[in-house]
Amino acid sequence: MYVILVYDMGQKRVGKMLKLCRRYMNWIQNSVFEGELTEVQLRELLHEAKRIMNEEEDSLILFKNRDLKWLDKQIVGVERQSTDNFL
Amino acid sequence: MYVILVYDMGQKRVGKMLKLCRRYMNWIQNSVFEGELTEVQLRELLHEAKRIMNEEEDSLILFKNRDLKWLDKQIVGVERQSTDNFL
Repeated sequence: MYVILVYDMGQKRVGKMLKLCRRYMNWIQNSVFEGELTEVQLRELLHEAKRIMNEEEDSLILFKNRDLKWLDKQIVGVERQSTDNFL
Repeated sequence: MYVILVYDMGQKRVGKMLKLCRRYMNWIQNSVFEGELTEVQLRELLHEAKRIMNEEEDSLILFKNRDLKWLDKQIVGVERQSTDNFL
């Protein structure tokens, strides 16, 4: 399924979360990722994310869709993913 | 239509963009908004956003969907929108 993930983490945990999300998804901007994941991959990702997160302080939002074709993506300004390597 | 908006702006412009997005959408996390917009509202929002943005530095991504029912939203950890008033 197609997933958009956004997180808002405490400074100490943000590096680990970034690394984790990159293993499964494509970074598109700031703390925003998108990707095609299986149910199993999503479950693994969430399991690992919860171990990193402080669930009383941090926030993770997922938007899930069976298929990217239902979503129309529009980018205004710079396309950050092209600068992926700088992070 | 249902819209998810994420921006990544230079520090000087971020306040203006936050204010603009709040006029049209619901803040859900960091620089992430969601909302039900008409075509006209979306056009107005983008028109104003482009006036605020430096399109060579800033980035704005929209995911548009005819209907929220095609998206499944899942929140892990804190639901930031409840602390909306603190920003």
